[in-house]
Amino acid sequence: MKVLVIGGDGYCGWATALHLSARGYEVAILDSLVRRHWDLELGVETLTPITAIQKRIDCWQGHSGKRLELFVGDITNYEFLSQTLRSFEPEAIVHFGEQRSAPFSMIDREHAVLTQVNNVVGTLNLLYAMKEFLPDCHLVKLGTMGEYGTPNIDIEEGYITIEHNGRKDTLPYPKQPGSFYHLSKVHDSHNIHFACKVWGLRATDLNQGVVYGVLTEETGLDEVLINRLDYDGVFGTALNRFCIQAAVGHPLTVYGTGGQTRSFLDIRDTVRCVELAIANPAESGKFRVFNQFTELFSVGDLAMMVKKAGTAMGLDVEVNHLDNPRVELEEHYFNAKNTNLLSLGLQPHFLSDSLLDSLLNFAIRYKERVDAQQILPKVSWRR
Amino acid sequence: MKVLVIGGDGYCGWATALHLSARGYEVAILDSLVRRHWDLELGVETLTPITAIQKRIDCWQGHSGKRLELFVGDITNYEFLSQTLRSFEPEAIVHFGEQRSAPFSMIDREHAVLTQVNNVVGTLNLLYAMKEFLPDCHLVKLGTMGEYGTPNIDIEEGYITIEHNGRKDTLPYPKQPGSFYHLSKVHDSHNIHFACKVWGLRATDLNQGVVYGVLTEETGLDEVLINRLDYDGVFGTALNRFCIQAAVGHPLTVYGTGGQTRSFLDIRDTVRCVELAIANPAESGKFRVFNQFTELFSVGDLAMMVKKAGTAMGLDVEVNHLDNPRVELEEHYFNAKNTNLLSLGLQPHFLSDSLLDSLLNFAIRYKERVDAQQILPKVSWRR
Repeated sequence: MKVLVIGGDGYCGWATALHLSARGYEVAILDSLVRRHWDLELGVETLTPITAIQKRIDCWQGHSGKRLELFVGDITNYEFLSQTLRSFEPEAIVHFGEQRSAPFSMIDREHAVLTQVNNVVGTLNLLYAMKEFLPDCHLVKLGTMGEYGTPNIDIEEGYITIEHNGRKDTLPYPKQPGSFYHLSKVHDSHNIHFACKVWGLRATDLNQGVVYGVLTEETGLDEVLINRLDYDGVFGTALNRFCIQAAVGHPLTVYGTGGQTRSFLDIRDTVRCVELAIANPAESGKFRVFNQFTELFSVGDLAMMVKKAGTAMGLDVEVNHLDNPRVELEEHYFNAKNTNLLSLGLQPHFLSDSLLDSLLNFAIRYKERVDAQQILPKVSWRR
Repeated sequence: MKVLVIGGDGYCGWATALHLSARGYEVAILDSLVRRHWDLELGVETLTPITAIQKRIDCWQGHSGKRLELFVGDITNYEFLSQTLRSFEPEAIVHFGEQRSAPFSMIDREHAVLTQVNNVVGTLNLLYAMKEFLPDCHLVKLGTMGEYGTPNIDIEEGYITIEHNGRKDTLPYPKQPGSFYHLSKVHDSHNIHFACKVWGLRATDLNQGVVYGVLTEETGLDEVLINRLDYDGVFGTALNRFCIQAAVGHPLTVYGTGGQTRSFLDIRDTVRCVELAIANPAESGKFRVFNQFTELFSVGDLAMMVKKAGTAMGLDVEVNHLDNPRVELEEHYFNAKNTNLLSLGLQPHFLSDSLLDSLLNFAIRYKERVDAQQILPKVSWRR
């Protein structure tokens, strides 16, 4: 089965492309490489020394005997996108190809507009190209659990049945996204839902939690295959960032009280979830939503777990509560469903001491590459 | 009080600008005039011979002694927009400045992308400019009742209280928009809601029904002040279109069974609703939603009402059921609340025989201007 991975040079995309290739899927990568460009613009670098995509692909071929086809270009360019689809003819498209950082989208007006135009137009182009050339192809689109915000009721998977004034309907779950980035994902979800309805396309929206970890079976095979691992204030995410901070002796940066509860998953589960979605495609005309995470943690609890694991390894780990640069509730109810992927067979890698040890050791190995100036958050949500 | 009307050269915008000016507001118009350009592109024309915006403004000054300030430019140009806000310093901004036709947005990929980028970026720019230069200004933004779709439960005004698994929260009402245009309005609503939350802006989202009629107290004063009235398959809307079809002896174009129920209001109520919203601003940090309509009708019932009124005037009126070019339910539950504006004092002009007579006579007066080639819908929602 042919699978096109859009954004296949990124953190989740690269791991997913290799995972699918290893399992016998015929994989092509489409990537604009703009993520590397944004690192240059912001003057930040992944902790890990990632190699050029062409080198990565050659190395993977050396190990696996499998060649990933590569299309370098931008999906906001419809000509390029439609030529790629006509040339490769995928049966499934995994779409990671969006600007994925909330702080990046909040830097200023230009970054907010860039994020929303890039993400919304890229996905609109994809929907039109599928309608035109591959109406039966299955779109597996990365959304985010952050689309839901923190409602005071249980979070269902994409839809909720509401009884109101004696009548009943199952409607899209109300969204309360917390940044212009998260908003772009909500816009996408609505657009994709509509395209499924009017054109009979099939799509799965994976509302993913915060991904942690770096090694997968495939990316760990060779240093040339190494995955990116962001620790900076713009692209770094909670648990990965804490481990790197612990490794270099920087206090862990908890925003506010740390009572914010979020959903998390191991990158080894990300790749498996995408595989499960592809192997069990949505029906034609159906917009299916899976909540893609395995566990819920508060940010403060995560910091304490990293402190404990770090201390056991002889590191001196402090936890700092910074003024929260975001506008978000720090104490709130949060309970989200994630049964769809479990019922398709996902066997979670729960967060464990051994994963934390491995991640801390990994961070220590590359700690000389850390630029301490890039650790603290610099982007504020407020006026 | 100073009010900036963005899109003040359009159907609702022009009538609103004059209404507010007549009532003592100091009004400026910002318009890119692109609506007139789209008419040229599509080869269509309003039924009425509208004059240039500068002539309209001069004429209004002659009648009222009041000068409308004019800013010609596009709000997707942030420099232009922020200079306008700094120069005029409005206390309220009425934002009609979006691509507002569902069929236009469904013509092809280019028009879908144009609609979403134009509407979303224009509104994002406005939010950033308000945050930067006028954080206390009240944004009165035109949304649409079409954001809700046709849920099988009552439609509330923007929010719904949901009880779920023993807990309760009031959340944004779930949206099921039916075109890329309607989707752009949903995207806007989410973006504005977020900006109110993080920056403390104040906004009112007016989810407007289908507007009918053409004369207001002010636009009827002089033919130079005449409002636009669209009858073509792209920009024309249900009731206005039916009256013009009846006037020229074209069968009324009902899509499908005509069982689609929608919300409607007289343009004389549009201008009054906007005035009420301005006079009673939202609190700082609040994203307020009003459903702006006065009555519900099925499209088929409207056609029958026009047939009856036309027949009484001696016109020969046929009703044609066309294959529905849209993807929508033709038989469905529809019950929407509209108490917010009523409780602020709106006294509706309900649809009456005399309004239909007046609209039919108006259409007959200009019927030589009708291009029969432009009446039938040419844009299909389907693949």
